[in-house]
Amino acid sequence: MKIFYSETHRQHDPAFEVFDGGQRVPYLESPERMDRILNALRKTDWADFEEPRDFGLDPIRAVHSDAYLTFLASAWTEWLGASPETSAASDKTALLPATFAAKRDQMPESILGKAGFFLLDLSVPVVEGTYAAALASANCALSAAQAIAPIAQSPNSHPLSPIPNLRLPPSAFALCRPPGHHAGREIAGGYCFLNNAAIAAQWLTQFGKIALLDVDYHAGNGTQDIFYSRSDVLTISIHADPSFEYPYYAGYATETGEGAGLGFHHNYPLPTGIDDAAYLQTLAHALGVIADYRPSSLVISLGVDAYEHDPLGTFKITRNGFTGIGQRIAALGLPTAIIMEGGYNTDALGENVAAFLQNFR
Amino acid sequence: MKIFYSETHRQHDPAFEVFDGGQRVPYLESPERMDRILNALRKTDWADFEEPRDFGLDPIRAVHSDAYLTFLASAWTEWLGASPETSAASDKTALLPATFAAKRDQMPESILGKAGFFLLDLSVPVVEGTYAAALASANCALSAAQAIAPIAQSPNSHPLSPIPNLRLPPSAFALCRPPGHHAGREIAGGYCFLNNAAIAAQWLTQFGKIALLDVDYHAGNGTQDIFYSRSDVLTISIHADPSFEYPYYAGYATETGEGAGLGFHHNYPLPTGIDDAAYLQTLAHALGVIADYRPSSLVISLGVDAYEHDPLGTFKITRNGFTGIGQRIAALGLPTAIIMEGGYNTDALGENVAAFLQNFR
Repeated sequence: MKIFYSETHRQHDPAFEVFDGGQRVPYLESPERMDRILNALRKTDWADFEEPRDFGLDPIRAVHSDAYLTFLASAWTEWLGASPETSAASDKTALLPATFAAKRDQMPESILGKAGFFLLDLSVPVVEGTYAAALASANCALSAAQAIAPIAQSPNSHPLSPIPNLRLPPSAFALCRPPGHHAGREIAGGYCFLNNAAIAAQWLTQFGKIALLDVDYHAGNGTQDIFYSRSDVLTISIHADPSFEYPYYAGYATETGEGAGLGFHHNYPLPTGIDDAAYLQTLAHALGVIADYRPSSLVISLGVDAYEHDPLGTFKITRNGFTGIGQRIAALGLPTAIIMEGGYNTDALGENVAAFLQNFR
Repeated sequence: MKIFYSETHRQHDPAFEVFDGGQRVPYLESPERMDRILNALRKTDWADFEEPRDFGLDPIRAVHSDAYLTFLASAWTEWLGASPETSAASDKTALLPATFAAKRDQMPESILGKAGFFLLDLSVPVVEGTYAAALASANCALSAAQAIAPIAQSPNSHPLSPIPNLRLPPSAFALCRPPGHHAGREIAGGYCFLNNAAIAAQWLTQFGKIALLDVDYHAGNGTQDIFYSRSDVLTISIHADPSFEYPYYAGYATETGEGAGLGFHHNYPLPTGIDDAAYLQTLAHALGVIADYRPSSLVISLGVDAYEHDPLGTFKITRNGFTGIGQRIAALGLPTAIIMEGGYNTDALGENVAAFLQNFR
């Protein structure tokens, strides 16, 4: 299985985030997460690592606004250069706003005003290498999308790798960091800056309808935001009920799309304590919706924070559970690009990802 | 001059706030601020201190939503009781959210979800006594409003104090803490929980049209929010341009009201470095708008953070400047309720407030 990975993620290494209650804690979405996944995948006989290709900005601009991308590109230097007289902050370890936009009709000119406009929580500190890491992460997702794209219809002239097993539909894994599914069209949050899965899905729409299934423990609110009024990308998210869990303000069952997209978004909010059996039951329903949609290919937002011992989760999914979840999804028989999202139990992270992926070999 | 003050403000004494960049700092809007103002006023021969009357919730509910008031009333106990499994936060020194509502169409059930829905920046930590202090502060504002209300038209049966100088229109000062002008209909921010000035203005509308002038260094975004579609309360704010200064997302010159309120809100955003002369020029324009409106009385949001040595400000207003500002406003000859807002140079705070108030004796 092709696995797209770039070392550039290490440039995004904030020293801290701020938890509820106002306490600074070490950044949980750490570079170590990737090391653990790499170690587990290297132990298998099917992991075929590859550097991502650089797709340029166009496929990213198809998902995120220019104002937002300009902000991400220049935020760090603007923050370093910001006059101290306009802010009481003197500690410039990371750009993290203290004031957030309740109204979005006016974007301020100052870097702190823009930060509170585009960064909507305290887990997206911007450091010097954040933008470079986010771009490399998006390129991993785009590379995985390209790896599963139908060769004949590909508009790109460069040669594609041959598909290893012609009896199986193609699949590829983007080992993305930072993750992406909480990033909206022009909002960063929940460790996410660019929505890698959405960027991959958007790129794949040139070949037909796409289904995007999000199995991360947290609602894929960014993905929901990006495709909410579209019918050519079916988006489905299975997650902890936002009435008690991050991201709180989206991911409700009543949110089913709008305009042309009405009926093409589905949220499955679940209570705490969900076990493998209960999860697989919900998943079966979601997979039925995907099968009915008849997409040309599938994008998976793979978080493994539904794991029973995840520090940010409340679900009870076991390693066997992740094997089962992967198995059911693979059984759809669709070309599948799997995009890495969350998962914070570093000890178990790699094995849980491998348990899911082994079904797609 | 009647000065309404309650010791209850001391119950709101958060240990810290979080500045831009994610650093915890001692809470700048401290109880000491009141001590400094009390000391300065006690040195004068015209300060007549009085406890506020309790007006109950009705005049507060006329300005803030029930959902918001319910949140403020129960937030602390809900936060203490919140299950640790729904949050990675273990430090419960203060309720301060880490995730903020970019969308406001769904209010989550959990305390952290509600916190990020109602508290939009990191300077409004909720502690055990926050709600009691905010209520007492609002009652100070209401008491000042009542003190300037026309006796004949007062719907309250209890006796009002006689006006000391019958040749001058009545005035009163509400020594409010926490301040109020950043609090919107259902949003806390910038050290503000209940919008004391708006509550006073709303109460006074029973006697006729009201003008509310905000001279705090920061835009009165909460007041703007509350009266934005109404013509019976003219709201005017003179402040640092939000394109570079807190509150960033409102206070722009283009925001002039909506619907029936169109033309009844005015923002005067000013650049850094404004001195007394430049300020008085802008003030003269604002006072002209107020005179044309012919209000039955006036409410002043009095912040003295435009002071040349304020740690949060960039203006260059001197003590003489505050005397001049008070003089010009008093010259309108309107019944005036003056409501304390910001000002963070504790050494100069009391004298600056006294310099302003002396014009209203």
